[in-house]
Amino acid sequence: MQKKILKNMGHLFSPSSVAVIGASQKPTKLGFHVMKSLTGGGFQGKIFPVNPGTKEIMGLSCFPTLSACEDPIDLAIIVVPAPGVPSVVEECASKGVKGIVLITAGFKEIEDPTGAVLHEQIANLANNAGIPVIGPNTFGMINFHANLNASFTPEFSQIKKGKVALVSQSGGMSHLLGFLGIRDSVGFSKIVGIGNRLNVDFAEMIEYLSQDPDTGCIALYVEGVNDPKTILDVAKEHSQSMPMVAYKTGSAGIGDQASVSHTGSVAGNYLIYEAGFRQAGIIPASNSVELLDAAKALANCPKPYGNGIAILSGQAGPGMAGADICEKQGLHIAQFALDTQNKINELLPPLALRTNPVDMGPAWYDASAIAGIVEAVMQDKNVDAILLFMMFASANVDAIERMSGILKEWRQKKPVISCFLSPPGIWDEQVRELEDAGALVNFSTPERAASAMAALCQYSKIAGRLGS
Amino acid sequence: MQKKILKNMGHLFSPSSVAVIGASQKPTKLGFHVMKSLTGGGFQGKIFPVNPGTKEIMGLSCFPTLSACEDPIDLAIIVVPAPGVPSVVEECASKGVKGIVLITAGFKEIEDPTGAVLHEQIANLANNAGIPVIGPNTFGMINFHANLNASFTPEFSQIKKGKVALVSQSGGMSHLLGFLGIRDSVGFSKIVGIGNRLNVDFAEMIEYLSQDPDTGCIALYVEGVNDPKTILDVAKEHSQSMPMVAYKTGSAGIGDQASVSHTGSVAGNYLIYEAGFRQAGIIPASNSVELLDAAKALANCPKPYGNGIAILSGQAGPGMAGADICEKQGLHIAQFALDTQNKINELLPPLALRTNPVDMGPAWYDASAIAGIVEAVMQDKNVDAILLFMMFASANVDAIERMSGILKEWRQKKPVISCFLSPPGIWDEQVRELEDAGALVNFSTPERAASAMAALCQYSKIAGRLGS
Repeated sequence: MQKKILKNMGHLFSPSSVAVIGASQKPTKLGFHVMKSLTGGGFQGKIFPVNPGTKEIMGLSCFPTLSACEDPIDLAIIVVPAPGVPSVVEECASKGVKGIVLITAGFKEIEDPTGAVLHEQIANLANNAGIPVIGPNTFGMINFHANLNASFTPEFSQIKKGKVALVSQSGGMSHLLGFLGIRDSVGFSKIVGIGNRLNVDFAEMIEYLSQDPDTGCIALYVEGVNDPKTILDVAKEHSQSMPMVAYKTGSAGIGDQASVSHTGSVAGNYLIYEAGFRQAGIIPASNSVELLDAAKALANCPKPYGNGIAILSGQAGPGMAGADICEKQGLHIAQFALDTQNKINELLPPLALRTNPVDMGPAWYDASAIAGIVEAVMQDKNVDAILLFMMFASANVDAIERMSGILKEWRQKKPVISCFLSPPGIWDEQVRELEDAGALVNFSTPERAASAMAALCQYSKIAGRLGS
Repeated sequence: MQKKILKNMGHLFSPSSVAVIGASQKPTKLGFHVMKSLTGGGFQGKIFPVNPGTKEIMGLSCFPTLSACEDPIDLAIIVVPAPGVPSVVEECASKGVKGIVLITAGFKEIEDPTGAVLHEQIANLANNAGIPVIGPNTFGMINFHANLNASFTPEFSQIKKGKVALVSQSGGMSHLLGFLGIRDSVGFSKIVGIGNRLNVDFAEMIEYLSQDPDTGCIALYVEGVNDPKTILDVAKEHSQSMPMVAYKTGSAGIGDQASVSHTGSVAGNYLIYEAGFRQAGIIPASNSVELLDAAKALANCPKPYGNGIAILSGQAGPGMAGADICEKQGLHIAQFALDTQNKINELLPPLALRTNPVDMGPAWYDASAIAGIVEAVMQDKNVDAILLFMMFASANVDAIERMSGILKEWRQKKPVISCFLSPPGIWDEQVRELEDAGALVNFSTPERAASAMAALCQYSKIAGRLGS
């Protein structure tokens, strides 16, 4: 890894000024959508559109060339056609640009060998100048905490700020995971489409993000890499202090019809990846939802000091569903200390399942009993982490109010992963408020909550918080 | 199974008149919430609250006893305390009530043996009178097509009418799955909490629902059953004409601390269930989301005549994720006929992945090319079913408009399962419209879409549409 490239990544992601080379006012052009993203995303730095054929774009003066702009430029977003890219990169280098997002496609990924030639040409220019390049062949990147939407998708600005950094080899999956994040209330620090990975690959992103104060977990979407060893080495170096989770596709050998008929070897390939991830301290995820759920929990929850889980459920069924997943994932359903058990026995009638998992159903209308149980279990030394499940309807909304003080009080001490589910509008707001306060992370099924808990416990092992 | 009980189930689910014994105007009473559900759910039949201490509830005249009501009663919903239930059931029998929803808890599920005694007493009364009883110890049931919310949760009435019938052993899971259905746009015909299963167990529900014109798939949530053989026999009798999918929890031996330490035998128990399901033609699901997704697809899609799948993806990554699942589930990524491939080659530039899975990315801004590809693939004889993935943002919303005619034209011929995902508000409405028209079913990730497709193909095998 080049030191200068790494050093410049800070400017790339948090620039004071951005130029868009190939900016456009025509909605059929990517340069239009990039300008829309940048200007509509709330970015506070300077924006300079560059296009020789236009005087003004979205109210901003347009420059014929990058050199014609007198201000210094930290970040250049390039959307001109591939053959014109080398000269633009050269111009960037002489102007002292610190970082490039190269959206243009038509390089290594095309059959025509001129694409690869262009790629090498740009790589030489960028590497000699020490300029990190995101792309080519990418939708771009977003740094949410800088309100910087350097992508061709303005809608990324609708995503909530938070601590998950997503690094993805696929633009489609970045859009999928980002939009899914809106549904599932996942906050992101950065979403980065690394595209053809000119000189910023997974390794460089992991190295950079591991030091990023806005990031609490790195989520990786991987299709295939040329140099897995470098990536895994970098991950291993940082995984004890920065949680990482990775989703790898391609086991079906898509795009390679020959390998489809050799499932064995391709699946084997996947297993090698998975083993590599584990050795490097990266938690493997097996689908989009698992990736995002694990990342949400890892980025936002305190890490447990053991894998003793308490399951408190407002209804028996969801508790069973959660317990099944815990069991399958090797978590331990804790035995409550005597004090805790006595307290629960006081608060619940004998007909309830009062041992762990606790069925709080018989206290359905008694919000203070539910809050009392949550508090007793929080204080129990045998309990390292809590799964809390409740299906809410209008009849029992006050339970969440009563619990919220206790949940907030304990927020940095023991992780709480919940499945609070209600019809829309009943208490979305209360759950959002508890999530924003760091008191819990919420999922829409008990199984997803329990799987995310398993990722947390796996990470505690990676970080050396648990014995092996 | 008693014939009279089965015969009366039609009246139970589609009554002309309903009495609520234990109706109340106090919000702390279940009888209040039941009245709220019934009156607020749009039920068009007569409603008779019964409570000796009140004259009027929610604007309806209240009767001191059931016998005091002169009208005939089809359905009695009972919410009085357990010790009073036998005499109420006796009254129901002499009044000629056709069906009972017995919400009251405190029977077999409690430690006190009087609960079991009461249960037997009520069972004798109901069986002698041939009255089917949903419960005891249930939240109730909802028949969406009759606007009948016979439960203590008014919010069930917010759920969309549709073809999935859910039969659940857990009230919590019924609420979970119902509320999840609102998020995921699943339409239900009925949701039934069978509770302690006095004389209406899974077997009776399967027998009844298999003939129900409103139901297109039965989803079962199972914790444990006393007589699996009867249930599996009934299922086997109907599974070729009525799709069924089941989710069984309890592998962790919850509520039975002893068995938790004998995981092997309990997990083995689960495997026996799974094998039983498969033999009976019930598709097993491994979590809440899978249960609902499979049921949504099975209830709404035409069943494919083969397992040759086409994957059309607006972006390569989601296509890969979907293809991986297809491969794992034994589906076949079809090879396109020559005509189809030629047509696709005309519509997409050479840099695209044009064989199956097709990466339609390079046609991102060309809605007519995308529609042309969808049409060509629909007509291909090698293709039995289509997975269609697109991440939408404002730049490409017109693609869905252009596709919709073709999707509607083919709706009864080949199943289309999509993952169209966008930020909220961009094209939720168009997707909803296509779902309502029966042109596709939509899921929020490609993996979920592909898993649901696997359930469809499994069902085609069960129904004898495929060779083995």
